[in-house]
Amino acid sequence: MMNALVLQSDFGLEDGAVSAMKGVAHNVSKVIPIYDNTHDIPPFDIWAGSYRLLQTVGYWPEHTVFVSVVDPGVGSERKSIVAKTNNNQYIVTPDNGTLTHVHQKVGIKEIREIDEEVNRLPKSGASHTFHGRDIYAYTGARLAAGVIKFEEVGHECKIEEMAQLTFYDPKKQDNMISGTIDILDVRFGNLWTNISRELFLSLGINYGDTVEIEITNDIRRVYRNSMTFGRSFASIQIGEGVLYVNSLDNMAVAINQGSFAKAHNIGTGPSWHITIKRID
Amino acid sequence: MMNALVLQSDFGLEDGAVSAMKGVAHNVSKVIPIYDNTHDIPPFDIWAGSYRLLQTVGYWPEHTVFVSVVDPGVGSERKSIVAKTNNNQYIVTPDNGTLTHVHQKVGIKEIREIDEEVNRLPKSGASHTFHGRDIYAYTGARLAAGVIKFEEVGHECKIEEMAQLTFYDPKKQDNMISGTIDILDVRFGNLWTNISRELFLSLGINYGDTVEIEITNDIRRVYRNSMTFGRSFASIQIGEGVLYVNSLDNMAVAINQGSFAKAHNIGTGPSWHITIKRID
Amino acid sequence: MMNALVLQSDFGLEDGAVSAMKGVAHNVSKVIPIYDNTHDIPPFDIWAGSYRLLQTVGYWPEHTVFVSVVDPGVGSERKSIVAKTNNNQYIVTPDNGTLTHVHQKVGIKEIREIDEEVNRLPKSGASHTFHGRDIYAYTGARLAAGVIKFEEVGHECKIEEMAQLTFYDPKKQDNMISGTIDILDVRFGNLWTNISRELFLSLGINYGDTVEIEITNDIRRVYRNSMTFGRSFASIQIGEGVLYVNSLDNMAVAINQGSFAKAHNIGTGPSWHITIKRID
Repeated sequence: MMNALVLQSDFGLEDGAVSAMKGVAHNVSKVIPIYDNTHDIPPFDIWAGSYRLLQTVGYWPEHTVFVSVVDPGVGSERKSIVAKTNNNQYIVTPDNGTLTHVHQKVGIKEIREIDEEVNRLPKSGASHTFHGRDIYAYTGARLAAGVIKFEEVGHECKIEEMAQLTFYDPKKQDNMISGTIDILDVRFGNLWTNISRELFLSLGINYGDTVEIEITNDIRRVYRNSMTFGRSFASIQIGEGVLYVNSLDNMAVAINQGSFAKAHNIGTGPSWHITIKRID
Repeated sequence: MMNALVLQSDFGLEDGAVSAMKGVAHNVSKVIPIYDNTHDIPPFDIWAGSYRLLQTVGYWPEHTVFVSVVDPGVGSERKSIVAKTNNNQYIVTPDNGTLTHVHQKVGIKEIREIDEEVNRLPKSGASHTFHGRDIYAYTGARLAAGVIKFEEVGHECKIEEMAQLTFYDPKKQDNMISGTIDILDVRFGNLWTNISRELFLSLGINYGDTVEIEITNDIRRVYRNSMTFGRSFASIQIGEGVLYVNSLDNMAVAINQGSFAKAHNIGTGPSWHITIKRID
Repeated sequence: MMNALVLQSDFGLEDGAVSAMKGVAHNVSKVIPIYDNTHDIPPFDIWAGSYRLLQTVGYWPEHTVFVSVVDPGVGSERKSIVAKTNNNQYIVTPDNGTLTHVHQKVGIKEIREIDEEVNRLPKSGASHTFHGRDIYAYTGARLAAGVIKFEEVGHECKIEEMAQLTFYDPKKQDNMISGTIDILDVRFGNLWTNISRELFLSLGINYGDTVEIEITNDIRRVYRNSMTFGRSFASIQIGEGVLYVNSLDNMAVAINQGSFAKAHNIGTGPSWHITIKRID
């Protein structure tokens, strides 16, 4: 049985890097379907790579093989690994924190270190800067095509020794939930928080209610105003702000047909805090 | 028989949205080929989405299923529909004007509203902002793979009640044709008008003849000069302007190896008028 | 046997041009796999197109058909050709220098001019500006699918009459090698030179040694400093410069996690000279 190979990187599509990876994979098997997750991860942004995997893995079938190459440490001693998730999908990646979100939200049940003696594109030994092509795409394709089994990737590693980025959980206090702005819905400038719908709903808020939103970074308060909790952008006027449930079932903030991120110069990451408060 | 699924949106490729759509489609059928039209439709630009469909549908086979998601009204009462064209292709889209150009130039013979009770990704009910993934990609893939027939999409709607953008026809008067600048050949800055080659040739102009071009918007005259009607950019010097027949058989204006749009700050849409005049 | 079709152009992905090419190819054969090399070749940059082919062809299987459309002379008398390389791959392209790098580094053993009477999309005769769709994608797909044999492309041409860009070889003198900066690793701002690893190593330099790098263009000296020859970016501190062997086995210059090209305003092409000097 042939499984899909889904590639992600911070390489962009401007040069031949992604094509070289696909060529290697297609050389391994002419029948595995090869897809892209995104190749526009900001350079070296492991957090974004980790998030984009979480955003998508649930929509692909069991046994799909993902290859993620955001690899600032290429050529260092960092390991190359393959993880098997609780949903029986595989992720091929440098061991640098790329698995943070999937580990927290989906769960990983086994990790193996890639044995480069066996699982490396033949005759690629002289280059030390493109493991995405020579190791990850090659190994991912062989796994997707059934040329090797997961057990043949290399020896098992301890999951608790896997590299992980700091992961923040939101906190509820009285009529208020505090979280972080994890990432943007880039094209539309919407803010995606780490506050789940379930936790938010425990505040006892309904569609159409007004909430108070405060956004701060480590330096100052950036935004404070009230807005409606709506089912979608269509619940409000064009140009108005809205709190809504995003496509990953987390709370998000948008300006209908505008960019909230640009309007208020909002960034992402652990220093960008957001508080949602019920107004009584 | 498996048919191609061709996806278009204003989502960009920077995040995981398009990958999630492809994952849903691939989950429906592991063998339908999935392609992209473009995902760089400017955000909420229904006109551009409509135009890019017209630009491409004719080059894909009968029974191809297109999914177009430019959807500023997601979550509102706007319908989700599937259109069957006169060439027996299908287009899955919100009913918001995306079908304007195909309806005018190719023709649509039947429209059905998507019955979301049946044709919606299972367990996707809590999110109201990503119908592209939960309804359109899912339904498009099921149609392409033959899991459902067109008749099973939902009940038939009246074509005359379909949402349409205002569509302007060019006008001929004496030795002159007036039209609009519909869209740009983005990468090269060429202007694509709504004036067909056939209508233009009725002025009695031949390759090598000189014409006068005037461009105005609602505020002022933006350009007025004469240029050659050439077979292609190669008919003129580098840096010179040329009137030519574009790849959709409409009249277009370019600077050879330069950008006419940038050179003269030209925009697109119904307020951008162009006049081509025969010089006697 | 079905072979892959790999498309490259300077069209970008913002409009429907690439989709139209894929539609034409898919119409020829519903089973050939269609991939992209890159469509972000800078407009009219034949040198970059030539380089991106060299960067990737070696990773794709024998009999793969590449289509490259960087075509400032579309509609002129320039020929349309198909080349067969020494590795039995095919490249469909305008005869304008796009084959320079592959000819120099891989070798071309036969060239045929496309006979447009036979090998042109039916009913596409009125447009003279989109040979990428009407001739190249169509012919490439027919070749990949086995609808036509290489001999049926058209009559054979002399390889020595093929258009070629000036190709510079690096020069060694005493303890120094001089070359040019051929292209950038765009996303990361690394400089890729035309100096091979083999030639460089003949200087007797080992990992960890310090070399002197000088970069000049035709006007002035742009950079002169010493840096380490490292296995990869991980050999040095973040923010430090490094000389390394790139993924094509040529010498390259980078700033670890920074952009050397932006830091020092470096361009590419024959007027951008680089000298690597052994320090004794």
